[in-house]
Amino acid sequence: MSQPSITDRLGDPETAREEGRRKMDWAMQHMPILQSLSGEFASEEPLDGEVVGMAMHVEAKTANLVELLAEGGAEVAITGCNPLSTHDDVSAALDAHPRITSYAERGVDDEQYYADIEAVIGHEPTITVDDGMDMVAAIHESFPELIDTIVGGCEETTTGVHRLRAMDADGELKYPVFAVNDTPMKTLFDNVHGTGESALATIAMTTNLSWASKTVVVAGYGYCGKGVAKKAAGQNANVVVTEVEPRRALEAHMEGYDVMPMADAAEVGDVFITTTGNRDVITREHFEVMQDGVLLANAGHFDVEVNLDHLSDMAVDQYEARDGVDAYELKDGRRLNVLAEGRLVNLAAPIALGHPVEVMDQSFGVQAVCVRELVEHGEEYGAGVHDVPDDLDREVAEIKLAAEGVEYDSLTDEQAEYMDSWDHGT
Amino acid sequence: MSQPSITDRLGDPETAREEGRRKMDWAMQHMPILQSLSGEFASEEPLDGEVVGMAMHVEAKTANLVELLAEGGAEVAITGCNPLSTHDDVSAALDAHPRITSYAERGVDDEQYYADIEAVIGHEPTITVDDGMDMVAAIHESFPELIDTIVGGCEETTTGVHRLRAMDADGELKYPVFAVNDTPMKTLFDNVHGTGESALATIAMTTNLSWASKTVVVAGYGYCGKGVAKKAAGQNANVVVTEVEPRRALEAHMEGYDVMPMADAAEVGDVFITTTGNRDVITREHFEVMQDGVLLANAGHFDVEVNLDHLSDMAVDQYEARDGVDAYELKDGRRLNVLAEGRLVNLAAPIALGHPVEVMDQSFGVQAVCVRELVEHGEEYGAGVHDVPDDLDREVAEIKLAAEGVEYDSLTDEQAEYMDSWDHGT
Amino acid sequence: MSQPSITDRLGDPETAREEGRRKMDWAMQHMPILQSLSGEFASEEPLDGEVVGMAMHVEAKTANLVELLAEGGAEVAITGCNPLSTHDDVSAALDAHPRITSYAERGVDDEQYYADIEAVIGHEPTITVDDGMDMVAAIHESFPELIDTIVGGCEETTTGVHRLRAMDADGELKYPVFAVNDTPMKTLFDNVHGTGESALATIAMTTNLSWASKTVVVAGYGYCGKGVAKKAAGQNANVVVTEVEPRRALEAHMEGYDVMPMADAAEVGDVFITTTGNRDVITREHFEVMQDGVLLANAGHFDVEVNLDHLSDMAVDQYEARDGVDAYELKDGRRLNVLAEGRLVNLAAPIALGHPVEVMDQSFGVQAVCVRELVEHGEEYGAGVHDVPDDLDREVAEIKLAAEGVEYDSLTDEQAEYMDSWDHGT
Amino acid sequence: MSQPSITDRLGDPETAREEGRRKMDWAMQHMPILQSLSGEFASEEPLDGEVVGMAMHVEAKTANLVELLAEGGAEVAITGCNPLSTHDDVSAALDAHPRITSYAERGVDDEQYYADIEAVIGHEPTITVDDGMDMVAAIHESFPELIDTIVGGCEETTTGVHRLRAMDADGELKYPVFAVNDTPMKTLFDNVHGTGESALATIAMTTNLSWASKTVVVAGYGYCGKGVAKKAAGQNANVVVTEVEPRRALEAHMEGYDVMPMADAAEVGDVFITTTGNRDVITREHFEVMQDGVLLANAGHFDVEVNLDHLSDMAVDQYEARDGVDAYELKDGRRLNVLAEGRLVNLAAPIALGHPVEVMDQSFGVQAVCVRELVEHGEEYGAGVHDVPDDLDREVAEIKLAAEGVEYDSLTDEQAEYMDSWDHGT
Repeated sequence: MSQPSITDRLGDPETAREEGRRKMDWAMQHMPILQSLSGEFASEEPLDGEVVGMAMHVEAKTANLVELLAEGGAEVAITGCNPLSTHDDVSAALDAHPRITSYAERGVDDEQYYADIEAVIGHEPTITVDDGMDMVAAIHESFPELIDTIVGGCEETTTGVHRLRAMDADGELKYPVFAVNDTPMKTLFDNVHGTGESALATIAMTTNLSWASKTVVVAGYGYCGKGVAKKAAGQNANVVVTEVEPRRALEAHMEGYDVMPMADAAEVGDVFITTTGNRDVITREHFEVMQDGVLLANAGHFDVEVNLDHLSDMAVDQYEARDGVDAYELKDGRRLNVLAEGRLVNLAAPIALGHPVEVMDQSFGVQAVCVRELVEHGEEYGAGVHDVPDDLDREVAEIKLAAEGVEYDSLTDEQAEYMDSWDHGT
Repeated sequence: MSQPSITDRLGDPETAREEGRRKMDWAMQHMPILQSLSGEFASEEPLDGEVVGMAMHVEAKTANLVELLAEGGAEVAITGCNPLSTHDDVSAALDAHPRITSYAERGVDDEQYYADIEAVIGHEPTITVDDGMDMVAAIHESFPELIDTIVGGCEETTTGVHRLRAMDADGELKYPVFAVNDTPMKTLFDNVHGTGESALATIAMTTNLSWASKTVVVAGYGYCGKGVAKKAAGQNANVVVTEVEPRRALEAHMEGYDVMPMADAAEVGDVFITTTGNRDVITREHFEVMQDGVLLANAGHFDVEVNLDHLSDMAVDQYEARDGVDAYELKDGRRLNVLAEGRLVNLAAPIALGHPVEVMDQSFGVQAVCVRELVEHGEEYGAGVHDVPDDLDREVAEIKLAAEGVEYDSLTDEQAEYMDSWDHGT
Repeated sequence: MSQPSITDRLGDPETAREEGRRKMDWAMQHMPILQSLSGEFASEEPLDGEVVGMAMHVEAKTANLVELLAEGGAEVAITGCNPLSTHDDVSAALDAHPRITSYAERGVDDEQYYADIEAVIGHEPTITVDDGMDMVAAIHESFPELIDTIVGGCEETTTGVHRLRAMDADGELKYPVFAVNDTPMKTLFDNVHGTGESALATIAMTTNLSWASKTVVVAGYGYCGKGVAKKAAGQNANVVVTEVEPRRALEAHMEGYDVMPMADAAEVGDVFITTTGNRDVITREHFEVMQDGVLLANAGHFDVEVNLDHLSDMAVDQYEARDGVDAYELKDGRRLNVLAEGRLVNLAAPIALGHPVEVMDQSFGVQAVCVRELVEHGEEYGAGVHDVPDDLDREVAEIKLAAEGVEYDSLTDEQAEYMDSWDHGT
Repeated sequence: MSQPSITDRLGDPETAREEGRRKMDWAMQHMPILQSLSGEFASEEPLDGEVVGMAMHVEAKTANLVELLAEGGAEVAITGCNPLSTHDDVSAALDAHPRITSYAERGVDDEQYYADIEAVIGHEPTITVDDGMDMVAAIHESFPELIDTIVGGCEETTTGVHRLRAMDADGELKYPVFAVNDTPMKTLFDNVHGTGESALATIAMTTNLSWASKTVVVAGYGYCGKGVAKKAAGQNANVVVTEVEPRRALEAHMEGYDVMPMADAAEVGDVFITTTGNRDVITREHFEVMQDGVLLANAGHFDVEVNLDHLSDMAVDQYEARDGVDAYELKDGRRLNVLAEGRLVNLAAPIALGHPVEVMDQSFGVQAVCVRELVEHGEEYGAGVHDVPDDLDREVAEIKLAAEGVEYDSLTDEQAEYMDSWDHGT
């Protein structure tokens, strides 16, 4: 594996490193959980002797997790999980750490993307940390010989966990992976508040348009969709939800949103935001009935939700209407505006910053204690997808509340006993 | 078991029956799920030969479930699950049905309350439907000989399920019980929207006070607490949440609410609403620091959340300030106002109507299909608490959406395949 | 004028008086502004020698204003302003005061209603306080000889002020009247929060129905309509607004609500709430396309917004579906449910309590200082409608904030000077 | 006046012009009101022969107004109204128009700023259009000889109107100026939705921080403050309001926000956003008690709300923590982060885009019809500040609703008559 790290690829990386460090410092100011764990990891080095292989969005917040793992004693090799989300300066700052090698570089082509993943695997990780399961997939497909020495992995995203569960159901997942994405600390905060706020702010600042009175079609009413819908309504948008699961559809209906099939929503929407994790959510039949000037943005992991092949095929002209906005002009003159090439808008738009710092702090706090758990008790977990142990998730919540100065009650002995009893009457 | 039914206890029940029927008719107009199931149950009589023993709030909405079960072929015996929530007219209307016997009567004392439960058990039910597990508890404690012939049961409330799970953990639950309370169709709608809206409307109409600018302390941030907090904020209250579980506390904090221990909340609250399902949530130490004129209301199942023994002990005077409001005057002149004697405010206040019709329709729709499931496949379930099978819950959601005219999408074959696959890349 | 007071009309009024007093006491607990003014009025008797003639909703809150004026030294004669909003017990409690005569009685017919107004006028008021300008109208039409000795009047409602301004524009208003309705302290709080909260709570508790997912059509987007829309959205309703003024229509649209003509709204609404102050807002053409089971409620002053003549004419059957709900069954089987006979729902429904206590405290605080102003400086105001002097309105706000313990900033001298200057640059 | 236009100052402006034109085109797509007026102005040239002198934020949206006025027949000279808000490319694109001269250039010093204003005045405008009244002030102070030939002016901002009214009260305003800022079409939309949404999105994208659970202190509860508070609450922030006017303070309190003096708010806030239009809202005494890491942003017109002289004086270190964020480190280690140097954050931050396109369309639509009104009927208005005639404001609302496809009701003859009558009874 002779793949050069980001530092080797850049010309003079000094300025980039300083800029990357400045970004990391700003983020760390607002990451109280990682700050708290940092003290513990640095003094106890619980990850000593481990090699962590990571494929994640390489920007300032993730970088603080990477550095925390290195401070905890591990050697870390990392690359990006999306060709457009890497900040080269942050990548360079990480690579300068004696125990970290970063291969991540913005805008690499597919070939280089997979070469970088293989370069990380070349470090022979004992633990993998993924955002979309590309690392797990590559190891299982091309480097099965490493599986025996891997203690376990962590997966950050809804989509990745979904794919891992499918793989597990097929009996193809050969080592334990924590479904970090599914913990309360992740789903209730990162997905709802993180995706919701950052997707909307990115769209607003990419387009200079307003939410008030806009009909915003949210495709999918999982945690991400709920966040987008709630925050859009909080900016006075008129929210329409599309769903395929009747309980979720009903939940959106009871919240007061309009629920309808995409075929109908396509006719009334001003802005479309996909959050389903599925493909072909918006296709030719929908483009055909949309209004002139609509915005199309994706807040799901992959760029398959809006079918751009269909749209390119229908367009008579295509041009950059604005940084991060591609206009597709149809033969009847309507212009459909696609943001960030249909990729995850809060990561891939030119001005995108990813999720807010504070919500990533929560998510990465769980990642850190899960990596520690794999080192300390990894052998207790069999191959397959595992829920994060509840006490770990709870530990992170306690750290966060303490850092925010939020106090709360605890059960008295009598109350705890009452909750465990079943023999008291009306 | 010679306990007289409600009809025998009332003098001339004709007028009461008519009034009860009028209440049931109004509710049934707004219960599309029960309407839909009614057709199926009446024609197929899936419950033929069964005896259903019920202890539930006997008012118009529940009555429509009771009648649906009778239409489905069952003999039904019912009594109340709270001495203050029974509507005698509805009880009489039910009792007039040839296959229904109702023992429920408003305001009975404890002795009569338990005698009525035993009267129901005297019908030798093959299926139990509980709201607070009093029926299950009584059978296990005093009539264990019936357990062999009982196919199973259903439990409606958070508190009941909690107690059943504790009983199950002790190995003491001897027949299968569906945790109807825990289904998405129940928790996401009944608890959040039902408890939230009805508790607030009942308090407003009992006191003639406003929510705008009030500091409303919500004790507990489970589904009920979330509903109360959300709806109170939606009326421009300033919401304070107390919790004992750190993830829930954090969730409330992230929602923008103030989170603090009850000891602090007691000093700033104008209205206190308990939703914890636990005892002694508000006690002497809190009364001591509350402001003059505060309202104390309970939206949890039992009347143990606000410790009225402490309050009575501290009071120098106690009087009815208004229908449904007892004022406790302390020696320093402060008046603390307790609503509905600390019982479930949306059921026990003089003007209370219980949960809104539509949300009970959802909950009772699940009850009905669960009873049908017990008859059809009860033998497949072992003793213990069981989650409602997902397809039953989903069936009820589909019925509701169809009735409301809400359409939604379904997965294409390609999308279903995509969701089940794990080998597609970035 | 030999019209008997309420005390004379009742049989044994002692119990009624006690009950009325209990209601007034509860309200007074939550009326900090009237409490504060009460001390001042009782000690200084600023209204000594005046006769105040009132036509207002006679219930507990208004009663505390009436008593405050009497404590301030005035003789007060009062009757109701709506045949269904009078509480006879409160009326009796007021009538027991040595300086107050009350003629108000619930459910009187039109003849008696106007006889009662004339009975009040028989006291030869020097000041009038109206809620709908019936007193002003009657004096101008039938007792013009009294106008010379009248110092001025106060008008409480949007509708009344509207009519007074029309009268003033015609040169027909012969003494000064304060448009109490139009002050910030009234419109921003009473109309928005008071009407909004109480209309919705009354409807919910009259019907036992839920707001979540309901399509609520709000007719008119003035202050009352804004309040109803905002509070309904806060209970997860899907709000539709109808309007005739384009800026208001646009304002509702920008808030995220659906705006459409009533002809379209009639087809999609579940609940209709009129707040326009105009007639024939919902008529035959709308009834013809409404869904089965809709609710029709009025939150505007008069019962002319929903055209019940049209509805009666169309109905094949009409019956009381529930207390406060009249069902009109059409020939195609659809049932349209009218609440409170189309009268102001939060005052005229059987369980109605009127506006919340706290918001009436603000409104009545302005009434009290306006009456005081008329006594002290009435001669400075010419005939016609007058805005409440800003310093009086502000005084009431200051009293309220002080009572609630809310502190706020004041301008420094430098800041005050800055706000008055125009010569500082960028 | 030999001041060179922006085109003369730039080297090769061709690329800049194209980029500026692209920005203007994007904005124009979402400005239906200006589109509608454009057709009328181009065909009728109502401004033929006039010279319009403007000092406004020179970016894409304003540029479309400028071009509309030129299309209407006027010669237009323009410069910026804030040294940091000019987009040079847009300025160049404007300057390329045969009837437009633009002097605006980003980042000019004070001397150049005022020289540019004088250059505009050198064109001898017959109409002025201001955003902050700098043009009006300069003409009155230094070029009084022009006043005779000036037909009138328009003022866009709260602050400008406030200063103009002060000037008018002093008898110093010598020609008519329309208070465009005060029209319903401006205050209800631009200030509330425009300032609210764009200030928050700019702060979020400048800092990568989240609103959920943040304590956001909003200084001032006028239209801008209401917008910021409402939108922040809609992103799950915990909102604190400071005010000096008791009715506004009470309004915020009734909305459910915490109201307190800045001295107390300073201790609890995470983010401070000033919207008062006044100076010294946040000063030394407040900095002394703030938490480490707070954000300080200004959404009022001038950069005097946060006293940076005090902060610089207290700081032991000052550095750029992030683009658009200056960190002031105090001697106890606390870091207070000032955004956009305390200037209007949604205009002056590096990534700022100004108000959303759609709300500026409304505001500029009013500007355009007001300029037309001055040409057609300017002589009917005396010197001083004038409210925008209601029919003009209404016309713009009608254009907007028509463009959005929103239909609304109109009064029937009977309804119009009813609203004008005063003699119908209860």
